[in-house]
Amino acid sequence: MTTVSIIGSGNVAFHLISAFKKAANVELIQVCARNSKNIEKLVDPSQIVSFPKALNPVDIVILAISDDAIASVSESVPEHCGIVAHTSGSMPITELSAKHRRAVFYPLQTFSAAKALDFASIPICLESEFPEDYSKITELARTISNANYSINSFQRKALHVAAVFVNNFVNEMYQIGYEICGENQIPFAILQPLILETAEKLKTLTPPEAQTGPAKRRDQKTITTHLEFLQNENKKRLYEIMTKSIQSHAEKL
Amino acid sequence: MTTVSIIGSGNVAFHLISAFKKAANVELIQVCARNSKNIEKLVDPSQIVSFPKALNPVDIVILAISDDAIASVSESVPEHCGIVAHTSGSMPITELSAKHRRAVFYPLQTFSAAKALDFASIPICLESEFPEDYSKITELARTISNANYSINSFQRKALHVAAVFVNNFVNEMYQIGYEICGENQIPFAILQPLILETAEKLKTLTPPEAQTGPAKRRDQKTITTHLEFLQNENKKRLYEIMTKSIQSHAEKL
Repeated sequence: MTTVSIIGSGNVAFHLISAFKKAANVELIQVCARNSKNIEKLVDPSQIVSFPKALNPVDIVILAISDDAIASVSESVPEHCGIVAHTSGSMPITELSAKHRRAVFYPLQTFSAAKALDFASIPICLESEFPEDYSKITELARTISNANYSINSFQRKALHVAAVFVNNFVNEMYQIGYEICGENQIPFAILQPLILETAEKLKTLTPPEAQTGPAKRRDQKTITTHLEFLQNENKKRLYEIMTKSIQSHAEKL
Repeated sequence: MTTVSIIGSGNVAFHLISAFKKAANVELIQVCARNSKNIEKLVDPSQIVSFPKALNPVDIVILAISDDAIASVSESVPEHCGIVAHTSGSMPITELSAKHRRAVFYPLQTFSAAKALDFASIPICLESEFPEDYSKITELARTISNANYSINSFQRKALHVAAVFVNNFVNEMYQIGYEICGENQIPFAILQPLILETAEKLKTLTPPEAQTGPAKRRDQKTITTHLEFLQNENKKRLYEIMTKSIQSHAEKL
């Protein structure tokens, strides 16, 4: 049985608390949150504290807070409170106060409060300062997920950048498709199967193998028609840049 | 029972032939292909012809060929051969020879020969010159798909542009994530759940609702760290442009 406390009440904290509560072999001891509104339905009021200094010793304290707050909040967690792990994709393990046994517990997923998540398939990227702590955080990760990876701070930064491309920037492409549909009285639902298939293709093909379309085919006639169609300067510029990017990759194949 | 013949032997032709062969209430009569290698396993040799003039009358002749060839190939299909429909996302219905009853039968999906497809959920965008032909092409579409939409030529062009954004350009974002993983000894599989979740989110959220990340949060510290991390000029420029695009949308919310 691993004991764990969580600092934070945002989307990541919310989903971690939900997952730990449902999991076996882990006990959620306390949640530290300045604003506890988000989590009041999840946690008994007696378990909620307002300040890190009120945290009792546990195996692992997880900081699910904004990057900027990691240094100061970890400093205010009492010494010998347990392994202290942050959940940030972009911060090195050394962002945590050096008075603790430090670790990283980074679930690589997009968290919206509005949408339920099945944690089982979410990869959790783990890092620890001391080898003996690695097995403890692995044990904790296994209570909620089947996919655990050892990822050092430099790799995690790379992964976070990659995640911005395949998540935030992909969603921005969806946004542009959504706008084009809206402007032309086309139900966005018509694009849904294509969107899903584009993502699911990667189960069997690499991105270069999966690529199709006018840019890859160098179908200049279609590319010109599309650029003429796009009146908005931002969309036009994106179309040109993405087309060139695809073509520069296609050259290397 | 609808009778249909197909001109073409590329990916779209291949998947349409496979789907019609499995479907009820439709009979595939002939396939016209200059290069029949792709389809020899699917169709009896006696059904394959090399030239459009060898096609017998059917209810609907489908041209699954490149955009550039639609005008000339449709011209060489004998008159009164049936309704003649093209499968192009970017060409107007008038690209077909005016000697025919013209229609469009555009399956909105990404077709790779390497990957099997379930046609049932693929939206088919339909257009006809004459209202009485619309019911015939709808009947044909229903034999293979549950999702049929009436989409005129202008809307279809818009849809094709939108599809390039949510498919080709999204896949290019996957490609960049794939490269960043490769350069840092990170298994690409670690990004797969995030990629799927990003696509599946759209079942319950609109793209603006689904957006997260440093650009949306205007987390300049992380954005700067990411730009410093990206050594490649193309990736750096894309990161900047996509970040600005997300922020310009976030302003409008």
